[in-house]
Amino acid sequence: MTSTSSTWGRLRQHLHTTQLLGGIHSTLYFDQNTAMPAAAAGWRGEQLALLAQQLHERQTSAAYQELLAGAEQELTPEAPAEQHHNLRLLKRELARQSRLDPALVGALAQAQAEGYSRWQEAKQRSNFQLFAPALERLIALRLKQAQQLAPVEAQADGSPRSPWEILAQPFEPDINKQQLAQWLLPLRDLLPPLLEQARSLPAGSSEPWDLSEPQQEELCSALLEGWGFNPERCLRARSPHPFSCTLGPDDFRITTRVVAGQPFSAFLATAHEWGHSLYEQGLPRTGEHWFPWPLGEATSMAVHESQSLFYENRLGRSQAMARRWHPRFRSALGRDVWGDAQAFWRDLNPIRAGLTRVEADEVSYGLHVLLRYELELALVEGGMPVAELPDAWNRGMQELLGVRPANDAEGCLQDVHWSEGLFGYFPSYALGHLISAQLSETLEAELGPIETLLAADGDAQLGAWLQQRVYPLGRSVNAAELVEQVSGRPLSHEPFGHYLRQKLEHLAS
Amino acid sequence: MTSTSSTWGRLRQHLHTTQLLGGIHSTLYFDQNTAMPAAAAGWRGEQLALLAQQLHERQTSAAYQELLAGAEQELTPEAPAEQHHNLRLLKRELARQSRLDPALVGALAQAQAEGYSRWQEAKQRSNFQLFAPALERLIALRLKQAQQLAPVEAQADGSPRSPWEILAQPFEPDINKQQLAQWLLPLRDLLPPLLEQARSLPAGSSEPWDLSEPQQEELCSALLEGWGFNPERCLRARSPHPFSCTLGPDDFRITTRVVAGQPFSAFLATAHEWGHSLYEQGLPRTGEHWFPWPLGEATSMAVHESQSLFYENRLGRSQAMARRWHPRFRSALGRDVWGDAQAFWRDLNPIRAGLTRVEADEVSYGLHVLLRYELELALVEGGMPVAELPDAWNRGMQELLGVRPANDAEGCLQDVHWSEGLFGYFPSYALGHLISAQLSETLEAELGPIETLLAADGDAQLGAWLQQRVYPLGRSVNAAELVEQVSGRPLSHEPFGHYLRQKLEHLAS
Repeated sequence: MTSTSSTWGRLRQHLHTTQLLGGIHSTLYFDQNTAMPAAAAGWRGEQLALLAQQLHERQTSAAYQELLAGAEQELTPEAPAEQHHNLRLLKRELARQSRLDPALVGALAQAQAEGYSRWQEAKQRSNFQLFAPALERLIALRLKQAQQLAPVEAQADGSPRSPWEILAQPFEPDINKQQLAQWLLPLRDLLPPLLEQARSLPAGSSEPWDLSEPQQEELCSALLEGWGFNPERCLRARSPHPFSCTLGPDDFRITTRVVAGQPFSAFLATAHEWGHSLYEQGLPRTGEHWFPWPLGEATSMAVHESQSLFYENRLGRSQAMARRWHPRFRSALGRDVWGDAQAFWRDLNPIRAGLTRVEADEVSYGLHVLLRYELELALVEGGMPVAELPDAWNRGMQELLGVRPANDAEGCLQDVHWSEGLFGYFPSYALGHLISAQLSETLEAELGPIETLLAADGDAQLGAWLQQRVYPLGRSVNAAELVEQVSGRPLSHEPFGHYLRQKLEHLAS
Repeated sequence: MTSTSSTWGRLRQHLHTTQLLGGIHSTLYFDQNTAMPAAAAGWRGEQLALLAQQLHERQTSAAYQELLAGAEQELTPEAPAEQHHNLRLLKRELARQSRLDPALVGALAQAQAEGYSRWQEAKQRSNFQLFAPALERLIALRLKQAQQLAPVEAQADGSPRSPWEILAQPFEPDINKQQLAQWLLPLRDLLPPLLEQARSLPAGSSEPWDLSEPQQEELCSALLEGWGFNPERCLRARSPHPFSCTLGPDDFRITTRVVAGQPFSAFLATAHEWGHSLYEQGLPRTGEHWFPWPLGEATSMAVHESQSLFYENRLGRSQAMARRWHPRFRSALGRDVWGDAQAFWRDLNPIRAGLTRVEADEVSYGLHVLLRYELELALVEGGMPVAELPDAWNRGMQELLGVRPANDAEGCLQDVHWSEGLFGYFPSYALGHLISAQLSETLEAELGPIETLLAADGDAQLGAWLQQRVYPLGRSVNAAELVEQVSGRPLSHEPFGHYLRQKLEHLAS
C-alpha cells in the first residue's frame, strides 16, 4: 500500500517534497528575523513570494488532485483509520485552497501589505483614523473570502458556519461561537475579582533591578540545559520578537530577546518558546501515518499555546523554580534585592491590570482576549462601524480591566493582527490557558502536585508525561477532543479558575 | 528591447527568478554553516538537492532554450556589445549544461559523497590507501566529464583544451597550461631563496600570547567598522571555516572563527573575507546589461582571491596597520609582548616553510600550489598511478619547501578539494597573489605607496580605487584581460616578486 509505485506512495513522496519546500520557507523566515540585514528585505520578500507560489501550485495542481483521487480509489474500507483520516484532512485542505478566487487572494495580499503599512504609521502617530480605511477594506475582503469558503466549511452536522467561525478555522479547527461562549464568557465573572484581590499582594523586590545581556543569555542557556536542550537538534538565537519554529524533522529553533528593564522577560520567553518547541519535537514523525502526513502536524494554535504556557507559567513561574533560581539571579545581580525565595517568586508573578496584552499576567490575559473577541465579532458579523472601534475598545478596557488607554497607540492599535486582517486568532491565546490548566490538573492527579515534582527536580518526569500523553496525538484530535481524551472531561474554565485562586492564595502568604 | 513583452525582457525575468532561487540556495548554505544543528544535515541535504534540481531544470529546460533562441533572433547587430556578450556567455553555459550526461552527473555526485566520506576517514586514520580507490574513481569520472564537454570547450582559436584545462574552466575562464607555466613556474626559482632569507628574520613577540573570543570579536568588528562595514547590507557571523557569500543584491555575509593559540587568525580572516565581500558588493548590479545578467557576476576565482588577498596582506599585514593596531592589541592583552610596532608587525608576518597550505605565509603559499598543480596534471593527464601520490607529495614538499610530512594526514590528505573531485581549483589561489601584486603596483603608481596612504588613514581612498577600476568590470573581461586592462601590461610574477623582496627587506630592518 505504501511502496512508491502505488498512488498512495507517490502521494507520500509529493507531501514529503512539499514539506521540504515548506522547511525552506521557514529557514528564510528564521534567517530574516535573526540574521538578514535590513536592506535585503525586498529581495527576501520576492524569494518568499516565489516559494509561496510554488507551494500553492503544489497544493492545488491538477497532478496533485489526481494523486489524491487515485489514492482514495486505492484505499479500501479495511485500511487503517489513520489513512482515511489523513485523506479527509488532505481533501478538506484541497477543497479550501481550490475555493479561493486567485483575484481575491491577490487583492487580500495587497490589502494586507497596505494595512500593515497604514497600521505602522497610525500606531506611530497614535491616530486610528489613518488606519481605519485599510481596516474597512480588510474586513470587506475577509468577509468575501468567508463567503467563498462557506460551501466547504460546513460543520460536521452539515449546519453552516458563521463568517467569523470560517476565518478562525485555520487557527482552531472545528471551533464555533457556542463553544467559545461556554469556555471564555465565564472569565468575565471569574477574573475581575481575582485582579481586585491581587491589588493587596505584597511586593517582590525591594528596588528596581536589571541584568546585563550576557548575564541573561547565560541564565536562559542554563534554563534550557536543565530542560534537556539538545544542541544536536535545537538552536536558540536572538530576534526582535521571540518565536519558535520547526525547520525540519530534526531542526528546532527558538529565539528570544533581552528587554532593558524587564530582566525576567527573556527568561520567561525562553521557557515559553521551549514549550512550543518541545510540542513540535514530540509530534509523531515516525510510522506510516505520521510524517509527512497531516496527522503528524500540530493540531491547533490553542493546543500549541497550552504547551508553551505550561512551560512558562506552570514551570517557569512556579514556587519551586523560584527557590531554585533565586540564588542564581542573586549571584548574577551581585546582591539580594528580594531577601528570600518567596519575594523572588512574587517578583516572577506580578499581577496587575495593565493596558497591554503582550505584557499581561495570567489573570488579566483572558480579559484582554475577551475584549478582542467581542470586538471582532462586532466588526465582522455585528455591523459595528470601524470608526467606533477606538471608543468601544476604551469602554471595554475600563469595564473589564478598570484601566483606560490614553491614546489609540496603547489602545486599539496595539496589536499587529488586525492590520493583516487576521480575525479569529485571539481566542486561541486564552484557550491555551484553559487547556494548560486542565491538562495540568490531570497530570497532578496522576503524578502528584507540580510544585512537589519540581521541588524534587522532577522536571523530566513532567516532560515525559506530556511526551507520552499529549504530543503523540498530533492532528488525530482537535483541541476539544484532545483535552477530553487526556483529562476525561470536556474543556472548561474551572481548572484554570482553581489554579489562579490557589496561586493568589500562596502569593498572599 | 527590454520591456517584459519582448523575448529579451522575458529572458531577463527568467534570469531574475533563477537568481532568486540561487540566493535561496546560498541562504540555506549560510544557515547550514552558521546556525543549523548537526542532526538536520540529512534534511538540509535533501533541500539543497531539490533546489539544485530546480536550478538545473531552469537552466536547461526547453522553455529556456527557446527564450535564448528568441532573444538571439531579436538581437540586432547594432545592439550594444554588452547584450551580445551576455548572450554568448549564456549560450556557452547552456551548451556546457546540455552536454552533461545526467547519468554521469548522478554517478559523479555519488562518487563525490563517497570520496568525501572516505577522505575523512583516511585523514583521521592518516592512511591514504583508504581513500585511494575513491580518488581513482573520481579521476576516471572527471575525465569522462571532460571528454563530454570537450566539443563545447574549445579555445577561442578553435584548438582543443586538455582535460585538466576543461575541468579548470568553471573556476578560471579561458585558463590554459601555457599561461599557467608562464605565470607560476617562475615561482619555483623565485620563492625558495626568499624562504631561505626569511630564516634569519628577527622574532616578533617575546612570548606566546592569545586573546579571548570576545576580545577577538571586538577587534574584528572594529576592523570592519573602520573599513566602512554597513550593517544595513552586511552581516558577520561565526562558522567553523571562514567564508564570504552573497545572498542577494543587498545582502552580503562573511563569517570568521576564533582559533585558540592563533590570535591573528580571526583578524586576518576577517580582512580576507571582507576583501571578497567588497568585490561582490562592487560588482555592477545596476544598468541594463548587468544584474541579473552574466556580465554582472564575478569573473573568476583568481580575481576574487586577489581582492581578498589585497585586504588581508596589502592592508591587514602592512606596517602602517601594525602601527595602528599595536596599541589596541596591547591594550586587549593587558601587556606589551612586542615592545614596539615593528616587532608587532613581524608577529603579523611570520614567514617560514611549513607543511600546511592553509597556514602558509605569502612566500610559501605559491610553492604549496605549485606542488598541487603539478600533481594534478600528473594524475589527470600524465597517467601517474594514484598509489604513487603520497610519495610524490612528500618528495615535492622536500624539494620545494624543504620539509617532509610525517604522515599522509599532514601530507597529501590535508586538503578537501580532491576528495570531491575538484581539479583545476588550486592555481587560482596562487594567481590571486600575482594579480593582487600587479594591481597594487598600478594603484601605487597612481596614488602613491600603500604604506603612505594607510599611514594617513587613506584606507577609503584605496577602497575607492578598487571600486572604480576593478569591481565594475564584472565578467566583461577574464582574469588576464582584467589585469592587462587595469595595469596596461600582461600578468606576470614580477610585481609579486618585487613586493616580497621589498617586504623581506623591511622585515629584516
